Amino acid sequence: MSDNKIPYKIYLEEEEMPKAWYNLRADMKNKPAPLLNPGTLQPLTVEELSGIFCRELVEQELDETTPFIPIPDEILSFYRMYRPSPLVRAYCLEEKLQTPAKIYYKFEGNNTSGSHKLNSAIAQAYYAKKQGLKGVTTETGAGQWGSALSMACAYLGLDCKLYIVKLYYEQKPFRREVMRTYGASVVPSPSDTTEVGRKILAEHPGTTGSLGCAISEAVEVSVKDPDYRYVLGSVLNQVLLHQSVIGLESKIAMDKYGIHPDVIIGCAGGGSNLGGLIAPFMGEKLRGEADYRIIAVEPASCPSFTRGTYAYDFCDTGKICPLAKMYTLGSDFIPSPNHAGGLRFHGMSTTLSQLYHDGFMEATSVEQTSVFEAAEQFARVEGILPAPESSHAIRVAIDEALKCKETGEEKTILFGLTGTGYFDMVAYEKFNNGEMSDYIPSDEDIAASIAKLPTV
Amino acid sequence: MSDNKIPYKIYLEEEEMPKAWYNLRADMKNKPAPLLNPGTLQPLTVEELSGIFCRELVEQELDETTPFIPIPDEILSFYRMYRPSPLVRAYCLEEKLQTPAKIYYKFEGNNTSGSHKLNSAIAQAYYAKKQGLKGVTTETGAGQWGSALSMACAYLGLDCKLYIVKLYYEQKPFRREVMRTYGASVVPSPSDTTEVGRKILAEHPGTTGSLGCAISEAVEVSVKDPDYRYVLGSVLNQVLLHQSVIGLESKIAMDKYGIHPDVIIGCAGGGSNLGGLIAPFMGEKLRGEADYRIIAVEPASCPSFTRGTYAYDFCDTGKICPLAKMYTLGSDFIPSPNHAGGLRFHGMSTTLSQLYHDGFMEATSVEQTSVFEAAEQFARVEGILPAPESSHAIRVAIDEALKCKETGEEKTILFGLTGTGYFDMVAYEKFNNGEMSDYIPSDEDIAASIAKLPTV
Repeated sequence: MSDNKIPYKIYLEEEEMPKAWYNLRADMKNKPAPLLNPGTLQPLTVEELSGIFCRELVEQELDETTPFIPIPDEILSFYRMYRPSPLVRAYCLEEKLQTPAKIYYKFEGNNTSGSHKLNSAIAQAYYAKKQGLKGVTTETGAGQWGSALSMACAYLGLDCKLYIVKLYYEQKPFRREVMRTYGASVVPSPSDTTEVGRKILAEHPGTTGSLGCAISEAVEVSVKDPDYRYVLGSVLNQVLLHQSVIGLESKIAMDKYGIHPDVIIGCAGGGSNLGGLIAPFMGEKLRGEADYRIIAVEPASCPSFTRGTYAYDFCDTGKICPLAKMYTLGSDFIPSPNHAGGLRFHGMSTTLSQLYHDGFMEATSVEQTSVFEAAEQFARVEGILPAPESSHAIRVAIDEALKCKETGEEKTILFGLTGTGYFDMVAYEKFNNGEMSDYIPSDEDIAASIAKLPTV
Repeated sequence: MSDNKIPYKIYLEEEEMPKAWYNLRADMKNKPAPLLNPGTLQPLTVEELSGIFCRELVEQELDETTPFIPIPDEILSFYRMYRPSPLVRAYCLEEKLQTPAKIYYKFEGNNTSGSHKLNSAIAQAYYAKKQGLKGVTTETGAGQWGSALSMACAYLGLDCKLYIVKLYYEQKPFRREVMRTYGASVVPSPSDTTEVGRKILAEHPGTTGSLGCAISEAVEVSVKDPDYRYVLGSVLNQVLLHQSVIGLESKIAMDKYGIHPDVIIGCAGGGSNLGGLIAPFMGEKLRGEADYRIIAVEPASCPSFTRGTYAYDFCDTGKICPLAKMYTLGSDFIPSPNHAGGLRFHGMSTTLSQLYHDGFMEATSVEQTSVFEAAEQFARVEGILPAPESSHAIRVAIDEALKCKETGEEKTILFGLTGTGYFDMVAYEKFNNGEMSDYIPSDEDIAASIAKLPTV
């Protein structure tokens, strides 16, 4: 189909939307390494994991062979409230950059949670409800996951207990009110409501918290109450599974118009957006049916892929969670208080870690001032005010488009625009006032943190 | 077409989108009364108005006969960045209410300005650019119009000078940063940068400002600099013209699926959203081709339609703007500091005023606590966190749907969901904490303000 037939924004029809999630692991020869019991160092069983997660989610977590898992009707109904998300041709950005590259972005911010997190929040809440639980607990960093989960729980009538990283509890009071409007209870972490929280407060008085620490608290609460289970917004295989809806919609839309992306770019914190966006494309690549260049973008202040090590590590600061084999900076690593709250996790999805280790994707890191420059440039021409997290992908998409300008190549670039920045205006204000600086951890800091990895 | 064929969200295809705005006045037998020169009390001429507004906008302002005015290609291109907006069937709300009514809403919040204001902002900025001006000045209340205009100006490379009502400058610092990110200069009003601002500060020290006062300041600046013109986000005929895109898209989508709305509901501050939403439906009603019940909803704290008088009045507190014949509470009326910033204007669109006066539409007023109850109820089932302004329409849509529950009538309700409430979390926080109260002006207060109307 000729280029001028392609709309600015491609919305799938309801009947074109995916009816099943795609389980990327089914096409991986080298499967991601299993989660280990932190006590026995043996792979976790269904029984063990069922103490933390809902049963059906445990099955999804461990399923390495079923390529497609049907999306339950109730979840499809909820998806229809805010999906399909648009696949947008960034005509205005292309013109601004004067690049021959064709830039597309899949925009996941058009819902009240402001990000793609809702795709997995509704799925996890649904299975909790189906299991007859009273509620769920979780942590949230920048608050996107917490907002999403509180929306999903409000819709299904489930209790929602949220531990929010203290830095963001204070920096983003409005996020807190969104969650409260949806009926969630919100606690700043570390808190004195859990054993692990009290321990961390004693060891690091004045800490602004971290995602790893908030995870420890949320897990502790859920483990102690049989009517609750813990849910998580990223890192896990089940989350990547649910987020595959992003990539599936993108691929259906691109196939419909005969568009082949040469480069696919996503920001990577725990990997939920990137893993979801690339899923069907990576599947083709693994099966040898097509080739794509795939780039993970992470902040220079928390560079798990680019400066971490591939090893078993705890997912939380309190070291009560399972061990995962992943690219990690060490569970003691505390990133500087940068402004990309969703990208502050010390580790990375085990699936993406394995794919990166096997050479199926690249990774790069970028500094936040250059990220906000890209964000502002994008906002002014494309209209959307992007989240700091998403703007990492924008930065690299612009860089790739500018390379095309030099070489004259007409590459097609697809990136994930995971969300909006309406709750990040403190960061934008710093940038607007020229007060934003960059922070790159020293080799010594990273080495010190990695030296403390558990021996497996 | 049967009910189950209607998608949750109807998005028009690009080729189905309107290519011309609809000028409702062409179908009105009783035209709205003309704007008067505040000095001579004679109808304003093209020449006089051209000192304040761009020439082509003046022509649109005064055109009472041309039913359709083509949308320039450049504006259509911009519209494609965020339009079509979805027409959503509120299945979840219907189920929650257990009503036989069918509820639809046209959602205009899916753009960074967070509201429908962008539809007219880009049009007004485009004509300013076309005329070779350096920039535009305006006022903004809740900041939606300011955000929209700064986006439009950033896109076109125009200067944007904004006077923002002081109450909202302080209550919504993040709005300010959105505007700054888009490159606008933002001044809290009343300010000492204008004569009228200094006068108001002297007379009302400590005032939190009003839209009427910010208008005076913005007009003064533009009148004194020939490279600038004044633009306005509501009230004017030209704005209703541009906003007709809301109603046109709604009507095309509803006609496509054979849906006939029995009741059409919109919030009304200056009338931009309501006038745009109802335009093509009201046109049919005026031509006797179809009938619709049309309801304007205003806050009980600023009830122009329901408790104002139909008379000539100033549009601004400083009394330097043209006189308009409209439903007004008097330009000296200062509404209480309620939380629907977009609905604090003392007057109303002249077009809507005439239509209301002639009995073609109804009006009702609602109190803010009941508005936030509706907002929360809507958010929890429909996902979207609505703006306080939009929630006025939600309140009445829910009330109408509940009436249908009593009577068993299967009415079809359409309401305008003008925007999102991400920048209104201070208000939501008050509501969440049970600290929100209602304020209804006394008959004496309104009578005192109306007594000061100019004699025309």
